[in-house]
Amino acid sequence: MSQENNDIIRIAVDAMGGDFAPDYPVLGAIQAAQENKNIEVILVGPEKEIKDVISKQNVSLSNLKVVNADEWVTMEDSPADVFKTKPNSSLNVALRLQREKEADALVSAGNTGAVLSHSTLRLGRIQGINRATIGAELPSTNGSTLVFDVGTTVDCRPNHLVEYAIMGSIFSKNIYKKDNPKVGLLSIGEEKTKGNELTLSAYEMLEKAPINFVGNVEGGDILRGTVDVVICDGFVGNILLKMAESVLDLFKFKLREYSEKGFLQKIWIGMMYGTLKKILRKFDYQEQGGTPLLGVNGISIIGHGKSTPYAIKKMIFRAEEVSRMKINRKIELAIIENKLINK
Amino acid sequence: MSQENNDIIRIAVDAMGGDFAPDYPVLGAIQAAQENKNIEVILVGPEKEIKDVISKQNVSLSNLKVVNADEWVTMEDSPADVFKTKPNSSLNVALRLQREKEADALVSAGNTGAVLSHSTLRLGRIQGINRATIGAELPSTNGSTLVFDVGTTVDCRPNHLVEYAIMGSIFSKNIYKKDNPKVGLLSIGEEKTKGNELTLSAYEMLEKAPINFVGNVEGGDILRGTVDVVICDGFVGNILLKMAESVLDLFKFKLREYSEKGFLQKIWIGMMYGTLKKILRKFDYQEQGGTPLLGVNGISIIGHGKSTPYAIKKMIFRAEEVSRMKINRKIELAIIENKLINK
Repeated sequence: MSQENNDIIRIAVDAMGGDFAPDYPVLGAIQAAQENKNIEVILVGPEKEIKDVISKQNVSLSNLKVVNADEWVTMEDSPADVFKTKPNSSLNVALRLQREKEADALVSAGNTGAVLSHSTLRLGRIQGINRATIGAELPSTNGSTLVFDVGTTVDCRPNHLVEYAIMGSIFSKNIYKKDNPKVGLLSIGEEKTKGNELTLSAYEMLEKAPINFVGNVEGGDILRGTVDVVICDGFVGNILLKMAESVLDLFKFKLREYSEKGFLQKIWIGMMYGTLKKILRKFDYQEQGGTPLLGVNGISIIGHGKSTPYAIKKMIFRAEEVSRMKINRKIELAIIENKLINK
Repeated sequence: MSQENNDIIRIAVDAMGGDFAPDYPVLGAIQAAQENKNIEVILVGPEKEIKDVISKQNVSLSNLKVVNADEWVTMEDSPADVFKTKPNSSLNVALRLQREKEADALVSAGNTGAVLSHSTLRLGRIQGINRATIGAELPSTNGSTLVFDVGTTVDCRPNHLVEYAIMGSIFSKNIYKKDNPKVGLLSIGEEKTKGNELTLSAYEMLEKAPINFVGNVEGGDILRGTVDVVICDGFVGNILLKMAESVLDLFKFKLREYSEKGFLQKIWIGMMYGTLKKILRKFDYQEQGGTPLLGVNGISIIGHGKSTPYAIKKMIFRAEEVSRMKINRKIELAIIENKLINK
């Protein structure tokens, strides 16, 4: 490990992001700062409220700071407008810290669209990247499958898919420690000739890209874990992700429906519940530690609005990891390499 | 009910369609013919083989016939080519019967692409329909959700989505007995302004169509059962369907993984298995009775390759219902109405 890797990583946490702000982000930040002394956590938001939550925990941490911001972005705010209407939002102030080199990364469980627009505007894009991308980790028989993109760009051009593939591949390799991550293009059949206009064009470009491209994969391959990284446009990815999230809801509904058939059924389901909860945990997005926004010239980790303190803590550690692994620099180099290959 | 509705409905079954042909299609046909004397089942395929399966069952049914066909379409055959290379396939002969008014409907658990291409070529499309569509029934907290299209046309134009919406709505109303079926357009947000180029254009046209259009729905709404009919292009629908089919695989994998942790876990999972199987049955496509091919000028019911005899029987009954409800005539009238409204 280089000396640089021992530097303290400073992570700005949007204390007003998520459905349970400021409590959960603050609690998650406290846990992270307690457990990891190689990071400094900077909580950004209304100072008094944040300090109230901290003081209730009765902790004093030298690596936990507070930076004041009197406004915040809500789930109802339009991602396109709020950048101008709330210049002093906790999100914007947190990103300003990163831009001014006073922080190395952002963690937010707030309005995803706003985190995306603010990150792109404040940090800019990595050289050679035309579209930033948000990925998601879906459960699979193989552990998990990363899907890019899940909602950044709905009408993609083929070269956007190639960028996603390169970024997803680097993320999988460095963060998920996959040796030579297998990248699949999401389509309607394994054959090269199966797909829509977008995927048919992207296929050719992916074959030449500096990644381990294994060809088309189908909808069933995501949960089956056939590949490490699945590439699709943001429209398809967003729909898939939301469908995957709803599987647990349907399953819980079916369990409840069964338990309401009678007293014995109720007891029986009650007995099974703990085991099922363990088995189904991977489907529960509250357990996961945020999804990366890749392609911006900085680090933004986006979390689910329902993120628990534990999830926030995991997002903070993820931010540290992305920073130490120099993911952005690696993306920049791979994009240059791809351009050389495809020249 | 009109007198016509008491007529015998003649259903041609592709005896060589599916992974367990001819056994399962023949067994399903026997069950259907036994249980329902208002239909005549015509098994199409190699006569000797079919009769061998029938004779083992030791039944004699006046409403079960066999029509010989010496060729058959395999899963490996190209849907585009096989129409010419195997003119005497069981699929083609079965459709010829329908074209020549010797049968009212087709049931096949064979190569989906081939059933689609043969049906379109042999039967033609309903007047005013530009694209036929295959739907799927997905489980939901509300019973089930119909999704159109799941793989017929991958690059759709907005008017194709409107046709799917009209056909799906009529199917839901007549076959699923929904009074005024709610139709949703699959997109990435509920707001009218959210979507890709295709859905944004289709939205406006759907608002004017003679259906109960409720606006955009998201990926999570399918299993949650927010609407009765979900409309999307065939690329998205195919991916969704295959993903939904794989949920059960992942769940079974997780159960097995847990049971392998130790002896007690194994016993515990064994005890839970029966209940879970009941609860998860809806995810199991082998239990379902085929998906409709809508928009062709005739009746084709397409089944999963793994269809059991029970599933084949259900497909045959579904074919009868589609015929008696005059779905095709209703589609024709609704398409005319839509054109008048949108003039």
